[in-house]
Amino acid sequence: MLTYSFENKGSDSLYEFLYKKIIEDILSGHLARDEKLPSKRALAKHLNISTITVENAYNQLMAEGYIYSKPKSGYYVSHISSPRLHTETVKPNYENEPEIIGEGACDIDLAMNSAAKDSFPFSVWTRLMREIMTDKSDLLTVNSPSVGIRELRCAISDYLFEFRGMRADPDCIIIGAGTEYLYSLIIQLLGRHKKYAVEDPGYRKIAQIYTANNVRFDYIPLDKNGVSTAALEKSKADVLHISPSHHFPTGKVTPVSRRYELLSWAEKSPDRYIIEDDYDSEFRFAGRPIPSLQSIDHGEKVIYINTFSKSLTSTIRISYMVLPKSLMALYKKELSFYSCTVSNFEQYTLAAFIEQGYFEKHINRMRNYYRTQRDELMEEIKKHPLFGRVQIKEEDAGLHFLMKVDTSLSDSQLIEKGKSKGINISCLSQYYKDESSADKHTLIINYSGLPKDDIKKAVQLLFETI
Amino acid sequence: MLTYSFENKGSDSLYEFLYKKIIEDILSGHLARDEKLPSKRALAKHLNISTITVENAYNQLMAEGYIYSKPKSGYYVSHISSPRLHTETVKPNYENEPEIIGEGACDIDLAMNSAAKDSFPFSVWTRLMREIMTDKSDLLTVNSPSVGIRELRCAISDYLFEFRGMRADPDCIIIGAGTEYLYSLIIQLLGRHKKYAVEDPGYRKIAQIYTANNVRFDYIPLDKNGVSTAALEKSKADVLHISPSHHFPTGKVTPVSRRYELLSWAEKSPDRYIIEDDYDSEFRFAGRPIPSLQSIDHGEKVIYINTFSKSLTSTIRISYMVLPKSLMALYKKELSFYSCTVSNFEQYTLAAFIEQGYFEKHINRMRNYYRTQRDELMEEIKKHPLFGRVQIKEEDAGLHFLMKVDTSLSDSQLIEKGKSKGINISCLSQYYKDESSADKHTLIINYSGLPKDDIKKAVQLLFETI
Repeated sequence: MLTYSFENKGSDSLYEFLYKKIIEDILSGHLARDEKLPSKRALAKHLNISTITVENAYNQLMAEGYIYSKPKSGYYVSHISSPRLHTETVKPNYENEPEIIGEGACDIDLAMNSAAKDSFPFSVWTRLMREIMTDKSDLLTVNSPSVGIRELRCAISDYLFEFRGMRADPDCIIIGAGTEYLYSLIIQLLGRHKKYAVEDPGYRKIAQIYTANNVRFDYIPLDKNGVSTAALEKSKADVLHISPSHHFPTGKVTPVSRRYELLSWAEKSPDRYIIEDDYDSEFRFAGRPIPSLQSIDHGEKVIYINTFSKSLTSTIRISYMVLPKSLMALYKKELSFYSCTVSNFEQYTLAAFIEQGYFEKHINRMRNYYRTQRDELMEEIKKHPLFGRVQIKEEDAGLHFLMKVDTSLSDSQLIEKGKSKGINISCLSQYYKDESSADKHTLIINYSGLPKDDIKKAVQLLFETI
Repeated sequence: MLTYSFENKGSDSLYEFLYKKIIEDILSGHLARDEKLPSKRALAKHLNISTITVENAYNQLMAEGYIYSKPKSGYYVSHISSPRLHTETVKPNYENEPEIIGEGACDIDLAMNSAAKDSFPFSVWTRLMREIMTDKSDLLTVNSPSVGIRELRCAISDYLFEFRGMRADPDCIIIGAGTEYLYSLIIQLLGRHKKYAVEDPGYRKIAQIYTANNVRFDYIPLDKNGVSTAALEKSKADVLHISPSHHFPTGKVTPVSRRYELLSWAEKSPDRYIIEDDYDSEFRFAGRPIPSLQSIDHGEKVIYINTFSKSLTSTIRISYMVLPKSLMALYKKELSFYSCTVSNFEQYTLAAFIEQGYFEKHINRMRNYYRTQRDELMEEIKKHPLFGRVQIKEEDAGLHFLMKVDTSLSDSQLIEKGKSKGINISCLSQYYKDESSADKHTLIINYSGLPKDDIKKAVQLLFETI
């Protein structure tokens, strides 16, 4: 009969230990298939344990299919093909490989366009969260609609009207965990058979997302007014993905004439759409915000998309899009089975944050902060003895500007040399599909994440590099 | 010269009003293309406003491309093709269409398998969140790695080892905003050209997600041991998507023999993988948890996936998957450009919640809660005079069981009749690709979201319906 010593059972209960021992015997072949197991009572007596213990072990073995029972006969070993022994019970040590977070060991990083650290209003956010936990705890466990909680969609609609002059029906807004996630929804909504078009140069992640989603896309070159409509027509693309209010990385604003041309292009076919990525429109320093393409779209052609990850902090993953009515109807029909990807906590907290005016205050504060940041950096650059070797471009908006430098180094040499000096820089040419067609020696200076105290040092290292 | 009355400017500043008026004149054609605008000084004098005001208006018009300047000559109207007037400035009223949340107006809902309300430990969660805001505010603004914050991945790894007997390297874990999002990552990772296989019957959303992502998939029928390997071979599928520890909706556990067969199937080709969706393994009432397929996989074939939306509250969107090492390497190479979809706040809070033992406590509490819930519901059913007409199946695990009823009504008649009585029920046949191949008259009783006080009423309505 099965004989086991319970001496080495460690922290296992008797039944768990017995269950594991029998599995070992089954997998190793000591117990053959269809072999009859001892009765519960007999085994209990033999091992000097209670019948209940054996019964628990047998029940678990039954539940997992290691043994089977025949009525009025007893328990038998199941047929298990190609088993392998799993004998490891000690927890492996995973601590060996420490993780490298971020982009390497550079002191100064002008290549990442992250939001300013320490700028996020933690105390207000925490207070609102606490209030919501108290006041709305019943709502917090009610599932959010697929498109997001109405309160947040209304707050966004109001904000867009007040500060962006946009008419966005809350019922046409979809909340999601980041713009990247929303892009994937758009692909599912518009269709994978469509051909997409991205800006060249442009934000590289967008092309990566279309690649990862296996959809066809073309790079459309920019002329001085933005995406070239001639190239767009030639590409036979259906869906154009652009940032007309502030192009990354050139900083260009698409003028209103080109905007109307692009809308006309879209209106020529029912398949055509424009995705307007308005990622940092809040941070324009001169004059009013540039009106969105969505606000002059009368043909239901523009999908407007924006994010709070840029304007609040990149570690809060909340973005949204405004769909034309017809596309929203399609979403409700085809895709509203998806759960909303943002937790209720954060949706309600953000809604309160906007409704109570904190978002507006935060944006104003950050706009001033970034303007000062830019001004101080610019002043430092202008003071430098080698200032004559650089030329600054497109500095009125967003969180970066371009700096054309007079140098004999290639762009990759510039980047390497920067690294060796402890400064991480990026070049315009890196954002072109074909580097050779790019303006050379043009650095993209992302200053939003640069600590104030590092400005002097950053400028010094910049000029040492070029 | 341009003449505007500033009387009706409302809340606009002088420059904004002037800017808008000039746009109106350009779009309506009152100002022709290439027409020269008055000089800033002349217009200021004419309108009796300051030159700065005109300059601001002209600058904004320049930025948006309505006008252009010629050096030493002045400002001219741009060429704008196909403009349309946008004259609406009053905010539209969106309040007309109140939104319907949820599944209709039924009193009792046994068709939704939501988590119990009021069960979420708000006070602990809020306290942890507050502590994290205080103690880790610097980390909260540091971007999470694409795969999620290491602290949370380590906490999950420890939990899986302690309570699931699984070896999951934290570096092979990916955090995401819900399993639905993780499915889309898996499709991008394994490839869209692959053929997927889902269980029939099965959780409908999985098929919907594959459909929305335009990938080919087959429904594989279940025999008494789970997914039929013969049908699987025949379908030529590459990737099998299953819930072996607790199938939805039948509640079946795939026995260990079939598990080894499925692993053997996967090992026959380098293209083959198994997605193990372990969605409610925490809520087994009898004996130990069923060991995961991942824990007996030695061929790097199993992608294990689980969620906290089921075990904590559905309104927290945090799920995770454990990839085989080789797939994790592929993820790092191809997809790690994606930002993590869960905010740092919630990742750190959940990590603390698990590390400090609250998750274990919560699971134990909920397991007891659901067991009591099931027992009370079962007792109420057994007490009913019509109990002889029903038969209960698969009640030891998860948050639902099956109830076969003796009735002359069709399944759709049952559902309709339930609705008319105020009880929302679902039938097993609804989860089959082909309803005709399903067991008829078998209700799925999802009791997890049923308030305790409604149990009597629910049973009464159930028996009135059948």
